Amino acid sequence: MNPSQPIGIFDSGIGGLTVAQAIRRKLPNENIIYFGDTAHLPYGDKSAHAIQAYAIKICDFLLKNNCKTILIACNSASAAAYELVKEYTASKAKVLNVIDPIVDFVSSEFANKKIGLIGTRATVQSIAYRKKIKAKNQGIDLKSVATPLLASMIEEGFFNNSISKVVIEKYLSNKKLAGIEGLILACTHYPLIKSDIQAFYKKSIEIIDGSAIVADALETYLTQTQLKNPQEEKGNMQFFVSDFTQSFEASSKLFFDEKVNLVEYPLWE
Amino acid sequence: MNPSQPIGIFDSGIGGLTVAQAIRRKLPNENIIYFGDTAHLPYGDKSAHAIQAYAIKICDFLLKNNCKTILIACNSASAAAYELVKEYTASKAKVLNVIDPIVDFVSSEFANKKIGLIGTRATVQSIAYRKKIKAKNQGIDLKSVATPLLASMIEEGFFNNSISKVVIEKYLSNKKLAGIEGLILACTHYPLIKSDIQAFYKKSIEIIDGSAIVADALETYLTQTQLKNPQEEKGNMQFFVSDFTQSFEASSKLFFDEKVNLVEYPLWE
Repeated sequence: MNPSQPIGIFDSGIGGLTVAQAIRRKLPNENIIYFGDTAHLPYGDKSAHAIQAYAIKICDFLLKNNCKTILIACNSASAAAYELVKEYTASKAKVLNVIDPIVDFVSSEFANKKIGLIGTRATVQSIAYRKKIKAKNQGIDLKSVATPLLASMIEEGFFNNSISKVVIEKYLSNKKLAGIEGLILACTHYPLIKSDIQAFYKKSIEIIDGSAIVADALETYLTQTQLKNPQEEKGNMQFFVSDFTQSFEASSKLFFDEKVNLVEYPLWE
Repeated sequence: MNPSQPIGIFDSGIGGLTVAQAIRRKLPNENIIYFGDTAHLPYGDKSAHAIQAYAIKICDFLLKNNCKTILIACNSASAAAYELVKEYTASKAKVLNVIDPIVDFVSSEFANKKIGLIGTRATVQSIAYRKKIKAKNQGIDLKSVATPLLASMIEEGFFNNSISKVVIEKYLSNKKLAGIEGLILACTHYPLIKSDIQAFYKKSIEIIDGSAIVADALETYLTQTQLKNPQEEKGNMQFFVSDFTQSFEASSKLFFDEKVNLVEYPLWE
């Protein structure tokens, strides 16, 4: 591997652009290839084996494009397919997920505290966070609540408004979350409703938005392995989707603050 | 074709069960094979060519299962793929969609009136309803509004509650719909929010729920062609999905009032 190779990022759709955005800010000189599996979005309600099958095919695409790292920028896919993608990729690229950096962060910051987690059904049911947090043995009491409507709601542009307020209130009023001191946003769409969630908690708890944490972890890895791109100009960005619609392209503006040209790559034909 | 062959019904997921339910009530002696393409759900945000590719493969499955009719119980798929599926199936089975019966109904009941339509982005953007209603030349003024969050909201069990109320209010307050005398529910999920919508309009307009209209159209076709199943016992029902999850099975109860055993049939492997 050499430093000029691109970073591959994939997600079920365009939510992972929040992670791509954080990486772009942190590592502006890296070339990035983003793949959004919009033909299958959302992953959050799909079975683990379906998500695994999709992830392998996307991984092939990113390897063919010579990526030095593959970042699974989707919690549902990180939970269902990380181990598989890592085995499959072997030494051809480093595979990173969005769960481990967050687990490391909460293990160091929330020892012996009660924290909450919200995410898709696939993420919550996988208990990936639960197992990994437990393995760290920091006495963290984790309460997870599936909040399946939030991702669609955000993609429709409903945030910071009366609809997002009532939906978020409904979910966060769940008794399981009473008394938490931090809340993990375990879906890459959720940074867009961070201020809605802070308003619900009146800023009394910490909202753990993984995108910056994940970008930090990627930077650490690239620095340690001397794989950081040394070029001085800004890196290229390419965005591929498995199904193109105008509305995906329009929605991408919600998640990424540079111009996004989505290119259809029909991976499933 | 002979009368004992089953009726094939398909949808992107489980919303089409509202149509299957109406058919079950109207034609209890028919054998029914239902296919829900849960691996690709929802169709409402996918491109027309993606929906067409899915529909052809499902159509193959239903023909292999010897269906005498194929009913596309999904507005997005009826809009994107009806003509294609009809050509593809040719004389092997009669193909029906959920749009034509509704267009016939409104053309006879709402001549020279203003009516509204709500549905997914795919359904609204296809302008299938608009073209067909215009071709009937009844002076109907149709105003369509895409309401993409409604299907996910209903699948999450949010109806007849504070969330559905605020989301529905937001969508139906669209100025385009001011002064309508009827509203087409152009998505097979929407019968579940019919009472929410009636409450919004204080029952002042007619809410056009296609499921019974479509079941009537199917009965008329079977009677005219002498393809109605003459057996006296209740028909069999089989439910297949392209991706199985517990939560699909649980949600199916919202749409169908008999026990539903979903069987995974991995059409895409």
